[in-house]
Amino acid sequence: MDKYGLDIFSNDNFIIIDGEVKINYKSKPSILNIVQEIRSQEIRGPMLLRFPHLVKKQIKSLYRNFNNAIVENNYNGSFNAVFPLKVNQFPHALDAITSQGKEFNYGLEAGSKAELILAMAKINKGAAITVNGFKDKEMVSLGFIAASSQHNITLTIEGLNELETIIEVANESNLVVPNIGIRIRLHSVGSGSWAKSGGMDAKFGLTSTEILEAITLLREANILNKLTMIHFHIGSQMSDIAPLKKALREAGNIYAELKKMGAKNLKNINIGGGLAVEYNQHEHCANYNYSVKEFSSSVVFLLAEIMDAKMVEHPNIYTESGRYAVASHAVLVAPVLELFSQDYQERLLNLKDINPPLVEELIELNQLLSKKNSIEYLHDALDHQESLFTLFDLGYIDLQDRSNAEILVHNIIKKALYIEGFEGSRELELLQARLQERYLVNLSIFQSMPDYWGLEQNFPVMPIHMLDKKPIRAASLWDITCDSDGEIGFNSDKPLYLHDINLDEEEYFLGFFNVGAYQETLGMNHNLFSRPNECTINIDEKSYTISNVVESDNIIEVLEDLGYKADEILNKLESDIFQSDFITKQEKTDTLAELKMYLSQNGYLRTTY
Amino acid sequence: MDKYGLDIFSNDNFIIIDGEVKINYKSKPSILNIVQEIRSQEIRGPMLLRFPHLVKKQIKSLYRNFNNAIVENNYNGSFNAVFPLKVNQFPHALDAITSQGKEFNYGLEAGSKAELILAMAKINKGAAITVNGFKDKEMVSLGFIAASSQHNITLTIEGLNELETIIEVANESNLVVPNIGIRIRLHSVGSGSWAKSGGMDAKFGLTSTEILEAITLLREANILNKLTMIHFHIGSQMSDIAPLKKALREAGNIYAELKKMGAKNLKNINIGGGLAVEYNQHEHCANYNYSVKEFSSSVVFLLAEIMDAKMVEHPNIYTESGRYAVASHAVLVAPVLELFSQDYQERLLNLKDINPPLVEELIELNQLLSKKNSIEYLHDALDHQESLFTLFDLGYIDLQDRSNAEILVHNIIKKALYIEGFEGSRELELLQARLQERYLVNLSIFQSMPDYWGLEQNFPVMPIHMLDKKPIRAASLWDITCDSDGEIGFNSDKPLYLHDINLDEEEYFLGFFNVGAYQETLGMNHNLFSRPNECTINIDEKSYTISNVVESDNIIEVLEDLGYKADEILNKLESDIFQSDFITKQEKTDTLAELKMYLSQNGYLRTTY
Repeated sequence: MDKYGLDIFSNDNFIIIDGEVKINYKSKPSILNIVQEIRSQEIRGPMLLRFPHLVKKQIKSLYRNFNNAIVENNYNGSFNAVFPLKVNQFPHALDAITSQGKEFNYGLEAGSKAELILAMAKINKGAAITVNGFKDKEMVSLGFIAASSQHNITLTIEGLNELETIIEVANESNLVVPNIGIRIRLHSVGSGSWAKSGGMDAKFGLTSTEILEAITLLREANILNKLTMIHFHIGSQMSDIAPLKKALREAGNIYAELKKMGAKNLKNINIGGGLAVEYNQHEHCANYNYSVKEFSSSVVFLLAEIMDAKMVEHPNIYTESGRYAVASHAVLVAPVLELFSQDYQERLLNLKDINPPLVEELIELNQLLSKKNSIEYLHDALDHQESLFTLFDLGYIDLQDRSNAEILVHNIIKKALYIEGFEGSRELELLQARLQERYLVNLSIFQSMPDYWGLEQNFPVMPIHMLDKKPIRAASLWDITCDSDGEIGFNSDKPLYLHDINLDEEEYFLGFFNVGAYQETLGMNHNLFSRPNECTINIDEKSYTISNVVESDNIIEVLEDLGYKADEILNKLESDIFQSDFITKQEKTDTLAELKMYLSQNGYLRTTY
Repeated sequence: MDKYGLDIFSNDNFIIIDGEVKINYKSKPSILNIVQEIRSQEIRGPMLLRFPHLVKKQIKSLYRNFNNAIVENNYNGSFNAVFPLKVNQFPHALDAITSQGKEFNYGLEAGSKAELILAMAKINKGAAITVNGFKDKEMVSLGFIAASSQHNITLTIEGLNELETIIEVANESNLVVPNIGIRIRLHSVGSGSWAKSGGMDAKFGLTSTEILEAITLLREANILNKLTMIHFHIGSQMSDIAPLKKALREAGNIYAELKKMGAKNLKNINIGGGLAVEYNQHEHCANYNYSVKEFSSSVVFLLAEIMDAKMVEHPNIYTESGRYAVASHAVLVAPVLELFSQDYQERLLNLKDINPPLVEELIELNQLLSKKNSIEYLHDALDHQESLFTLFDLGYIDLQDRSNAEILVHNIIKKALYIEGFEGSRELELLQARLQERYLVNLSIFQSMPDYWGLEQNFPVMPIHMLDKKPIRAASLWDITCDSDGEIGFNSDKPLYLHDINLDEEEYFLGFFNVGAYQETLGMNHNLFSRPNECTINIDEKSYTISNVVESDNIIEVLEDLGYKADEILNKLESDIFQSDFITKQEKTDTLAELKMYLSQNGYLRTTY
């Protein structure tokens, strides 16, 4: 049976038992059962399931690996991690992060004023808040307010102007000066898709010359003692570990130099994010070339080596690995609504007594196709089809002739593929792709997987049940937006096969995995499809509980969000119905009731059974 | 003076007078004046300006061109247009469309239930509503409700299942059956970036064989009289007109065939969208190869030719050109917050008595560089820099040495470029790009130009003032998100030069043009930056008025939108301040007041003067 690469991408988080995907934790509940239970409450459309235990697993893994490396390398600094809020700011995701991270003193990173407010409101007492990104005077002042509220906060400066603003605010107010970090601009560059974050032309960070100037400014303002951290980031979803090592050498030496220059409270080095997540579900195309063990060992070993060589105390290590922490915690489940077959039913062939000559030739090719002529006849058929389409466009043949041509050519392709086998030339592969089945899925790719649209980032996808049957259909996935980009096409390099199902008789659900990082916060309201329904699943030894159910906005809420007045819309719809000459009074009353019901539902499609 | 391609992209909508961009309409107000007036009300951050007269201009142009073509070709059908709501569903955009389009009976297209409700609430009486996209039974029923409310509505079916659902609803209810359209699947394909919309593998539409089956189903259900439209769409932002002509031949013949088969109420052919918008501001890279005049002439001429040949009455023509209608109506204006210079100030050079040998060599190269050795010395300097960076990473030189190397090499590059001229080899061009200035702009590309991120779609950008001075700085634009993708890099093929300004003394505003289509509706809340401020500008002979001001959500609203409770957040922030041991009681009261002020402002950065 096909495991859809579950062993590649899922890190043992999920397991197939009895043909269903189950959560591989304690009582091992079935995702299908959970989804059915939620749907039994009349909740329809896509459903995002959050698993807090998977957040804990990732945080534990991060701390365990680093702490092991610290012991093995006799490293004297501590390991600390913060979660970058931009990766997922939604309440029930953040709740999972702060509650599961509490025992680790897991911190939060903010990149904007709104995120900083959120961090101040939600941080566990004593855990670190780091602040990256561009800051104006107001945001700097917020940092002072946070420090004065006894938060453990570090403002990382992205340029000298920000430092000047910090000094200005320090001079103007009696509030507590927050800790200061310096983001360094690396000459070495990252290797992931987001590698632009690093490098001399990067958007962020100070050059050596600027760092030296910063030290002068800090010293002159008498706050050099507030410099506690240097920070770098070589890009999210780091595919290769080599650039990290280069960056660590560079940053480690800058750290050691600053210590030697008198930055006596400098004690933290923040290595940013970068730990990759496996989004791939096919054997041959892994996303990255290292384990979290190698990652943590490399960081600790290299920093120790550099500091020992320069006789500088080992710094505490901070990471900001958001993707690693939360990508796996959310799974999107969506029902298949319909199959759009590319199969032309031969029964619809409706030949005339006299057919156009090229159609007659297709009839003959279809009849005489055999092992010894299949490719030649296939080529003839494709050529004839092109000609017949042109004849149709020019008015020489009619719609029935064209339909007959479509059916005959389709049949010839199928026969040829059957004879030649599906793995032959590139041409045969492309033809095979034409025979694929289109699965219409009740979700919006723009809302739920924006990185697929923006970055061609694939997410692992598989049915969550029927896994004891062999999937035989080469599948494309269509979302329900009116946008041709809302399609995950069949890719013969990374093929997806799904089951042949009769949706009139049975349901079919697909799970999209590792969607917990960035996808929610970047979600787009294309065609006004709102955020999916969501809920949190807590699993114990005996069973599971469903909590934090947030239903997808209903249509009226969606329109109100845009700025429309619900009342005005309702009144207009109602008055149009009641002024109609087309239906009876009773029908008007019934229609209005029906309409109001639709308005109270989300805008996704509903399976009709 | 540089006109920034205003003559290429703006279609005479804007004009430079006295060094400022003015709206080329009636009293010709200056964009800068409008922006200053709004900012005088303490509104900060990016500002989206809507110009309803530009919507009218586009709609008029569409109707005028088609109606001219109709007269010239003795065409017997009428021309009609509908606006696809997915392009911009926001209230003040839609208001501009329905008010400016009223005299043309301009209709609306809906692609989801929420959009259909919006269309029903906002359509001008009697104007057409078309419905595309996948439909479940509820959405089909909504179509019946709309028809029963006397709307002029056509449901375009995307597959046979939808037709079966229509027949089912017709049998179950007494409501009025809406008009029915059939979307055809073309064998010919479009040419734009969105060309996937067309073609045999497209997400949407029926094949010839399915169309024939649809006719059978309609006839059997006794509602063939409801078939009024066939529809196709070859993709948005069509770059070339040739595929449209092919598609028209195909669709026109299908139309004629269906008429001959007895679809007597079939009278409309809907050619979808596709009319391109000029997003380019450089002479040599136009986005498309036809005018709206050629577009309309081609459509009318070809349809007449096909129908005349088959002796079928000319159909009415419908288009769904949303991008063409609204892209130009919105201009985003954002202030530059800061310049990040790549300039290393020579005064910071801090040479030691004894420098590392390679630094000594750089000193010499810098001194001796001249016309006859500049390229050779440049190469040496770049090579030394690499070596010095490596020496730093390995702990052999210190931070001051590294800084000195940066400054010296930078100086050598500048001298060499000055001697060799800026247009030389590819290498010199790349080095020049390293010297470019970074302009930090107070906006989020993810929120305000998502197609730049997702589709690498450039939008025309230019300063809205200071145009009587020569812009001399090669410029990159940075947005204020913590994301390295939030950058519009300098591209030497499509260079952007901006002014050298001192932001401590003067403001500098950039305008991003043609952002009225898709950008608002696809906007992403990355880093929690909310939608920009917006307003509508109506211009008359004497002056202009600013109305429909919608301020960007403040921080508390942004957090509430995510599902947080404002009260809980406020209480937590307040109690943290009041429990602090670090500040006095008076400071606590002042701090709380300051904090509340920040919470009532949007999360964008604020210029500090």
